[in-house]
Amino acid sequence: MPGVIPYLIRAYCNWIEDNNLTPYVLVRAKSKGLSIPDGFENNGKIVLNISASATADRLINNESISFKARFHGKSQKIIVPCEAVMSIYANENGEGMLFDNKGISSDKGDKNQALRY
Amino acid sequence: MPGVIPYLIRAYCNWIEDNNLTPYVLVRAKSKGLSIPDGFENNGKIVLNISASATADRLINNESISFKARFHGKSQKIIVPCEAVMSIYANENGEGMLFDNKGISSDKGDKNQALRY
Repeated sequence: MPGVIPYLIRAYCNWIEDNNLTPYVLVRAKSKGLSIPDGFENNGKIVLNISASATADRLINNESISFKARFHGKSQKIIVPCEAVMSIYANENGEGMLFDNKGISSDKGDKNQALRY
Repeated sequence: MPGVIPYLIRAYCNWIEDNNLTPYVLVRAKSKGLSIPDGFENNGKIVLNISASATADRLINNESISFKARFHGKSQKIIVPCEAVMSIYANENGEGMLFDNKGISSDKGDKNQALRY
């Protein structure tokens, strides 16, 4: 059964933006399929603003979150496999969901936990 | 902050149907705003098949799940407030999400738990 995590990422992204807050994702660095400029990793993790206003051509499908964003003044294409997403949350208040997602399998959505950070 | 539960109900409903399974909801009977034919309550709870194939005019908005369905051969309009939904799951394998949703407040989405029943 394909994983539920992409569906949950979309749900939380919509919920956060409908509340006029800013969706951020915490991403496991060095994940297979991750495409991101160098220099953003911190302790094996990367934090990305995926809000509609900070990105262009944002697409969250069942495989990945992809968008264009400006880094050091230059537009770059970012690809984040859904299985690399550790959590999605509103930057303003931390409300969101933590995924128990080790990147090994994408069918562990049943073990996700929503939380207030 | 409006609750995340309607967003999660939509996410799980889509995920379950994309996997060719049948979404069911477990609903707290006697909830305010619940509109359902008599005789389906069992121990204070009601189980409903909300699949596209078992319903007509299904709509899941931020307030309620509404649809038409046949009961005893007669089409009837059903309205289930999102805050009355205790869980959504695939009937075939029980995968889904349990909501820690007491019907008191709709902003408790951060305490939801996904589980395998």
